[in-house]
Amino acid sequence: MDHLKRIVAAIAIIGWSALPLAQAKAQSKFTAGLSWANEAGSVLSITSVGPNGLLSGTFTTKVGCGHGKPHPVTGWFYPAANGGAVTFSVYWNGCNSVTSWLGQFNNTTNHFQALWHLSVASAPVWNGIVAGSDIFTRTAAGRKP
Amino acid sequence: MDHLKRIVAAIAIIGWSALPLAQAKAQSKFTAGLSWANEAGSVLSITSVGPNGLLSGTFTTKVGCGHGKPHPVTGWFYPAANGGAVTFSVYWNGCNSVTSWLGQFNNTTNHFQALWHLSVASAPVWNGIVAGSDIFTRTAAGRKP
Amino acid sequence: MDHLKRIVAAIAIIGWSALPLAQAKAQSKFTAGLSWANEAGSVLSITSVGPNGLLSGTFTTKVGCGHGKPHPVTGWFYPAANGGAVTFSVYWNGCNSVTSWLGQFNNTTNHFQALWHLSVASAPVWNGIVAGSDIFTRTAAGRKP
Amino acid sequence: MDHLKRIVAAIAIIGWSALPLAQAKAQSKFTAGLSWANEAGSVLSITSVGPNGLLSGTFTTKVGCGHGKPHPVTGWFYPAANGGAVTFSVYWNGCNSVTSWLGQFNNTTNHFQALWHLSVASAPVWNGIVAGSDIFTRTAAGRKP
Repeated sequence: MDHLKRIVAAIAIIGWSALPLAQAKAQSKFTAGLSWANEAGSVLSITSVGPNGLLSGTFTTKVGCGHGKPHPVTGWFYPAANGGAVTFSVYWNGCNSVTSWLGQFNNTTNHFQALWHLSVASAPVWNGIVAGSDIFTRTAAGRKP
Repeated sequence: MDHLKRIVAAIAIIGWSALPLAQAKAQSKFTAGLSWANEAGSVLSITSVGPNGLLSGTFTTKVGCGHGKPHPVTGWFYPAANGGAVTFSVYWNGCNSVTSWLGQFNNTTNHFQALWHLSVASAPVWNGIVAGSDIFTRTAAGRKP
Repeated sequence: MDHLKRIVAAIAIIGWSALPLAQAKAQSKFTAGLSWANEAGSVLSITSVGPNGLLSGTFTTKVGCGHGKPHPVTGWFYPAANGGAVTFSVYWNGCNSVTSWLGQFNNTTNHFQALWHLSVASAPVWNGIVAGSDIFTRTAAGRKP
Repeated sequence: MDHLKRIVAAIAIIGWSALPLAQAKAQSKFTAGLSWANEAGSVLSITSVGPNGLLSGTFTTKVGCGHGKPHPVTGWFYPAANGGAVTFSVYWNGCNSVTSWLGQFNNTTNHFQALWHLSVASAPVWNGIVAGSDIFTRTAAGRKP
């Protein structure tokens, strides 16, 4: 059964990849009103994705300075037939830092893995940038009816 | 002479660091109307920096797909007394990719060094993210009178 | 600066709280004769971990040039009471490239997550470095009786 | 996908255009007995580069824990006609951390730029990896007559 699903999904992906861009955009599953959570439980909520790819929303982290409070997000989503490129960044108001994530979205699994960098607000210091990676999964709260 | 400049700069930095945040923001040298070029000659031009840190502008790359054309930029600048945290990302319209830079700005040198990631618009592939780093220097065109 | 202080504090705490080195080493689960696989099924096999932390072994990738063949690994493991820092790099003989992984090992889960960079053998080109991250899990084959 | 194609094409071109390996190695300027310093004055000294690409040496950092003392280096150099891929890592004995650099060497300028990650020795913590980039220049001390 699982095998059958994969074949159907593969056919769908192949089929979609031949469609024009406007249609690919319409099929994108990375859209306004949805949310994704990483392994730590931090949540990205998308408020809007513009026709030019500009996205905005909030990010509520579970770890570090500013945790538990939504912080503003800006970034881009570039759709493809089977997923897309996503990048978003957060201004940690009151925490003297910003973070940027970047990764590739999977339309089939609704997951995306992203590399991130966090920069401390100061003149350059050798240990001023922290790095890591996250796997984001669609949250129930962010699931459309 | 150089020594004297450094002492003056050091005093200035120490002095500034005691000022309240609003004033630190006013002193920031990462402001609208300025431009920075990296080693390859690619140019970041800042159109606006909002009171909440939101920045917008354009990026004109010298290398790769989309070179020579300004592409839209969104991101954040978080000011500090002696510099700040900066992150900005670009939507490479027509090139199926996005790039995000993140680094620390130096108010004294007007330079910033930034790590970047570029993601290809597709479902995840093992080699879908390119990485690098750039040093950005204020351009003459971006120098205020 | 709060973030930076926390990082510095974290490093200090880790340093002080560490058990005597010999004891930490005895507890380490990242030892010779074991293997770890990432999500793609690529396998790291550890041949030896020297008293100075030097590790050697092989890496057999499932993706890209050189897949299916073990390639030589060199790197370091720095033990801590509850895990450790690990870095290892691979020479892709015949593939004109090298890759380096770096991450933190968890003694409780026997997993480690690592960021990686791959560099193409050539003079610098803007897109000469690929980046990603992997989660490595102990393999059954690498499980000691 | 254009970017991805270019990267794949670039790898293919580099592979095909490479001189016979023995010749490329003879031309390599990244050899035993030489040293490179980064912007902060930290020095990489190469003790040996094996026929299989394995390199060893020392790294003496100017910043952070362990500064001023040579620490052991292991890594790889993969030669190409015009440069090569280089990666090396350091065990910060007494500092509970390891660092790995990776970049591309330029035979013409004798410089190389490298991205680095530093990992704290502990079980994974969200801010356990620091990131940055360095430009390494051949030192006078490391210049052969």
